[in-house]
Amino acid sequence: MKATIIHGARDIRLETVPDPVLQSDTDAIVRVVAACVCGSDLWPYRGIAPTKEPHRIGHEFVGIIEEVGTAVETVRVGDFVIAPFYYCDNTCINCRNGVSTSCLNGGWWGANDRDGNLVDGAQGERVRVPLADGTLVATPDVPDAALVPHLLTLADVMGTGHHAALSAGVTEGSTVAVVGDGAVGLCAILAAHRLGASRIVAMSRHADRQAIAREFGATDVVEERGDDGVAKVKELFDGIGADCVLECVGTKESMDQAIRSARPGGMVGYVGVPAGGPELPIGTLFNTNVGVRGGVASVRGYIEELLPEVLSGTLTPGRVFDLELPLADVADAYAAMDERRATKVLLRP
Amino acid sequence: MKATIIHGARDIRLETVPDPVLQSDTDAIVRVVAACVCGSDLWPYRGIAPTKEPHRIGHEFVGIIEEVGTAVETVRVGDFVIAPFYYCDNTCINCRNGVSTSCLNGGWWGANDRDGNLVDGAQGERVRVPLADGTLVATPDVPDAALVPHLLTLADVMGTGHHAALSAGVTEGSTVAVVGDGAVGLCAILAAHRLGASRIVAMSRHADRQAIAREFGATDVVEERGDDGVAKVKELFDGIGADCVLECVGTKESMDQAIRSARPGGMVGYVGVPAGGPELPIGTLFNTNVGVRGGVASVRGYIEELLPEVLSGTLTPGRVFDLELPLADVADAYAAMDERRATKVLLRP
Repeated sequence: MKATIIHGARDIRLETVPDPVLQSDTDAIVRVVAACVCGSDLWPYRGIAPTKEPHRIGHEFVGIIEEVGTAVETVRVGDFVIAPFYYCDNTCINCRNGVSTSCLNGGWWGANDRDGNLVDGAQGERVRVPLADGTLVATPDVPDAALVPHLLTLADVMGTGHHAALSAGVTEGSTVAVVGDGAVGLCAILAAHRLGASRIVAMSRHADRQAIAREFGATDVVEERGDDGVAKVKELFDGIGADCVLECVGTKESMDQAIRSARPGGMVGYVGVPAGGPELPIGTLFNTNVGVRGGVASVRGYIEELLPEVLSGTLTPGRVFDLELPLADVADAYAAMDERRATKVLLRP
Repeated sequence: MKATIIHGARDIRLETVPDPVLQSDTDAIVRVVAACVCGSDLWPYRGIAPTKEPHRIGHEFVGIIEEVGTAVETVRVGDFVIAPFYYCDNTCINCRNGVSTSCLNGGWWGANDRDGNLVDGAQGERVRVPLADGTLVATPDVPDAALVPHLLTLADVMGTGHHAALSAGVTEGSTVAVVGDGAVGLCAILAAHRLGASRIVAMSRHADRQAIAREFGATDVVEERGDDGVAKVKELFDGIGADCVLECVGTKESMDQAIRSARPGGMVGYVGVPAGGPELPIGTLFNTNVGVRGGVASVRGYIEELLPEVLSGTLTPGRVFDLELPLADVADAYAAMDERRATKVLLRP
């Protein structure tokens, strides 16, 4: 089959690799219907996270089950399934605590599993899925093609935006500011709106993304950054800042923006993958009682929570895809996102 | 009157200073009945926080109102009052949000107010209290002498322990670990117990403090620190760590201990005044979804919440005082705490 391999900075290739086969009786083989490129894929693409040796890449996909191991019970051949951006058993104590990203038996697409067998990346034609019962969520029927982009966001960006909002404690009436206008930032706006936020400030400088932000529920847009951005956000919220700030970038600057935009006693929910490891300024946090919570989003549980609204058409996060390419053009997909020609690119094998 | 002045590291003196007088119609003058030394007073005492010039010190007191300004309405001459470790109007937006430590008009004992007038420190005979209506909480009657130590803890350590527990989200059934066995750490145990924690691990190496910890509700004691301490705490909680960890010290080591003792998705509530500014490791927090919330505790609001239980005798945080000295011996009080001869020293002017 064909699968995407990253060889180094700005070196993405679609290559012929062995077809995946069942390695364990809890595995499934899924034919990928749609995959996509994540903002976090740009860290290795840009060389910010170095690529030591060529490896599979991609962690978001939906598809059709082609084969299951003998111990797989809850999903079946022919099911249309959504995979979270990691695999998990959904039964261990961390999964039961709602932190399936810390599953005691889980792992990551594109890396070896605990038995030393490669788990495929998502930007390919097929994926071997370990712990299929725990990992995969099947839709009741094979959905219309128009629903596929929306369903695909449940693999990562919509669930991750939701995680930012929950981590920041967004609830009915909260005031919210969102740092980052990529796909996750936009989904965080949608999530905050869905949870009942009374006012949502999108921090964005791009007209096209501002338009989606407003469509997703943003009530205000702040284009300024740094001190000016903080001042503008404070001005919008009684001079003190927002109850909840959703950090959806992962740089030192964006985290600083987020912390300083929160009101005293407010909460920063963060999901931006830390790039370059910004440390958090404990002195500022202590003096202001601003809390920080978040991390790698446990989207597996959120798929089931959000799926009914996506299927009914009331939640339309797939709007974040503004470019669709065949898998053969995966290198172009990365370049388009890197050059900000696209917010998020959907790939069709 | 007599008041305590810190001149530098290990140089604490009781000196004669001018009697305080009303400076504003919202002021009150309080005769101090009891004050005490805080663990955070030891940072300047030890020279870790340098003392640039001699200044008043102390921020915990209870007393009797001797005089009020013409605009003071809710407290009266003769009232026995508890002061939080800061003053506040209790009406601004931050106070209304429950973050009175960020009061837009508030400030700190022992420093100048916004008009440039000195606000007395608490380790003295009398204190001018700005914003008396917002700051002071009066008891229904002048309490029995036996209640004074318990009431005095509401000025800081009991409220601060409660803040740690609330910040970590302790609720019915939570599993809890407490880092720090000073007065605040012990009060944090009491607060977690009061909020319904099912199991509370005290991290302590001192037999006398372990005894109070158990009396306050600790179910287990862990003497180990560092990697061994983390391993012990994890072992007690299904191998993953505690739901809630209360950090009550303020060093890099104690914060590290706290973060690593929390289970994935758990929460660190911290109230230790950061000494030397430990930064928080965002990478670890991101990967484990451990959140961090807390800071300078908004105890003003907690005084009203906790007072009825102290008055009825069901909450006895005053057990943390294990030495009582006359104000004249204030230098000894600091030395006793510095040398760990006492957990917390009560001073009687």
